[in-house]
Amino acid sequence: MNAKRFGNLLIAQSGGPTMVINQSLIGVVAAALDLQEVGKIYGARHGIEGILGEDLVDFRRESRRHLEQVAQTPSAALGSVRRKPSPEDCTAIFEVLRRREVRGFFYIGGNDSAETVQIIDQAARRAKHDLVCFHIPKTIDNDLRANDHTPGYGSAARFVACALMGDDLDNRALGGVKIDVIMGRHAGFLTAASALARTAPDDGPHLIYLPERPFDPDRFVVDVQGVVARLGRCVVAVSEGIVDADGQPIAARFSQERDSHGNVQLSGTGALGDLLAGWIREQGGIRRVRADTFGYLQRTFPGMVSTVDAREARAVGKAALQAALGRRWTSGSIAIKRQAGKRYGVTFEVVPIGRVARRTRSMPAAFINRAGNDVTPAFVDYARPLVGELPVKALLQAERA
Amino acid sequence: MNAKRFGNLLIAQSGGPTMVINQSLIGVVAAALDLQEVGKIYGARHGIEGILGEDLVDFRRESRRHLEQVAQTPSAALGSVRRKPSPEDCTAIFEVLRRREVRGFFYIGGNDSAETVQIIDQAARRAKHDLVCFHIPKTIDNDLRANDHTPGYGSAARFVACALMGDDLDNRALGGVKIDVIMGRHAGFLTAASALARTAPDDGPHLIYLPERPFDPDRFVVDVQGVVARLGRCVVAVSEGIVDADGQPIAARFSQERDSHGNVQLSGTGALGDLLAGWIREQGGIRRVRADTFGYLQRTFPGMVSTVDAREARAVGKAALQAALGRRWTSGSIAIKRQAGKRYGVTFEVVPIGRVARRTRSMPAAFINRAGNDVTPAFVDYARPLVGELPVKALLQAERA
Repeated sequence: MNAKRFGNLLIAQSGGPTMVINQSLIGVVAAALDLQEVGKIYGARHGIEGILGEDLVDFRRESRRHLEQVAQTPSAALGSVRRKPSPEDCTAIFEVLRRREVRGFFYIGGNDSAETVQIIDQAARRAKHDLVCFHIPKTIDNDLRANDHTPGYGSAARFVACALMGDDLDNRALGGVKIDVIMGRHAGFLTAASALARTAPDDGPHLIYLPERPFDPDRFVVDVQGVVARLGRCVVAVSEGIVDADGQPIAARFSQERDSHGNVQLSGTGALGDLLAGWIREQGGIRRVRADTFGYLQRTFPGMVSTVDAREARAVGKAALQAALGRRWTSGSIAIKRQAGKRYGVTFEVVPIGRVARRTRSMPAAFINRAGNDVTPAFVDYARPLVGELPVKALLQAERA
Repeated sequence: MNAKRFGNLLIAQSGGPTMVINQSLIGVVAAALDLQEVGKIYGARHGIEGILGEDLVDFRRESRRHLEQVAQTPSAALGSVRRKPSPEDCTAIFEVLRRREVRGFFYIGGNDSAETVQIIDQAARRAKHDLVCFHIPKTIDNDLRANDHTPGYGSAARFVACALMGDDLDNRALGGVKIDVIMGRHAGFLTAASALARTAPDDGPHLIYLPERPFDPDRFVVDVQGVVARLGRCVVAVSEGIVDADGQPIAARFSQERDSHGNVQLSGTGALGDLLAGWIREQGGIRRVRADTFGYLQRTFPGMVSTVDAREARAVGKAALQAALGRRWTSGSIAIKRQAGKRYGVTFEVVPIGRVARRTRSMPAAFINRAGNDVTPAFVDYARPLVGELPVKALLQAERA
């Protein structure tokens, strides 16, 4: 073997898909294809399950042109998984990686996926297995620590902002109360992005409820009644992760299902929206109340990609490859840092994997208003560059004739 | 008064908004602005309620540039209403139209709105009131009789096709069963558009259920189990309007709310999706089952407009104005007819209002497969030109390494 040779690579994707997770995948792959020191470039289907079952693809067999189309395709091209490796899994994973002469392992995902990378890295150190492990960030929830924001968030936020813009126009036309339930288990960033839909002073969403503040049903009814009294209508954005005064998710009342990381299933059901709509109808005395739950549309909708998000998702993949080959780190995660100054710009930094694994971050207090039912202008300034220009919107301006 | 003068116009919008209903509105307005024979161009806010309350705007006070931006904005810029005029309403409406010297009345909407136009037209004839009444078609349901298709359908169908493309990619990544509930009270055209998402042989949606065929829960569970056995996953598109063997909407079990045209409220709740998901989970024995209800997003989503749909919506507005000013008709509706031949093309024809009022049309039998759980290639050929090019999608092609 060539002394300069790094070895083979293996890349996999994990957790909930996003619109740009394939940009990160092809970010690693396309950069690696150019390097003579890299041997085989394996992809494992469905995360660690694809390693355990040796369900692998060789990226050197795909054409460049086709890989670029894959990069533009939403969801996880290799398939995904929600599985935390057991000690036995780790032993089996090493066995496959050793046999396949894999020296660089890249796992694209959120905080649970970072934990998986950490477990594999620690086990590799203990086993004195020569493996470089990198986590590549991805989550529409934008809840990874050590990052200004995460790849996948900008595009999902763009979907939410466009959806609320359309929904507010719909609500202007027919009135009543409209409740939109948006993804976000612990962090309200995605629900908060609904605020970007506003361009006129009376535009919705008129109320925004986040998991970071306890949700009080009585207060909610009073809030909605107040907006209806003022505008004759009301659009509400609510996170699926809103919690009661005891910190219990309100949506958990309807669901018993948990994944192996211990997360309760919140999405894929309209029950929370229907519950909230029922409260407004019965306790608020308002007749026309509708609830939509955006569900899975917001994370993999073709054609909704934010240009900035796609570019950064690609860049973190490439940065992970460079860090792994630089031999300065044996493990780590790539974090996006925002540069100071008026003009939007970012840098990509290697951080220890422990800084992003397991624990998540929430919306800072400065992004939430005092009443706990809206965001602040500071949040809008933070989020706008991540989402990009929104479609044209114009209301009739003429005075009453 | 000048002998050549036609008089003033009044335009309003009614029923559910669409992504291109403002194209039809500005189609009338922009063409009328150029004509000296037309006096004032009124818009009534919230349909006939704006006439009754004289909540009118004068389009001559808006700038051309701004009107073009309004045309590109989803939902109904004048606001909408669901209200069938009573005989007393008609008397009050004439009083306003007479006082405002309105000679041409244009109402943009679906079959219920056409019924409103018919009622006003008949009352005008009886009262010997000199009024030209035109209905301008609009409905995402694509269920107007006498039309090949209706403005608003192509853009909503584009949303549904893109959503299913993304959702199928999401389902490939994480597996299980995914159920998507799509709008459509009596006609399955919008749900059927989910088939346009397919490009590969194993692409979803794998099953499509329409209101035109009775929905059998037992058969549904068997169908889904069959797809899961074959592919390890299943994506289902279901119309909100599916009916049981007695012709009763399954979603009506959850809703008591009716509008003044007698329609039960089906949208704005996730209950049907949750019911179907429960059946698959409990009777089908499948663990990961998710349901999303697309709700209002599919009719007013900014940036999802089909180019063909926008162009035709504009053209029907202009055609209605020309027909009204041509003095050959005192009332009518504009119908879209498809030209024979391989290349897609349409003509716009005036049809008597009675041909589109009240009754709706359903999917022709030739568009539904024998088993009643999918569409035919004939439907795909019919719908594809209305929706336009869809975003790029590419799967990894490499063999197992």
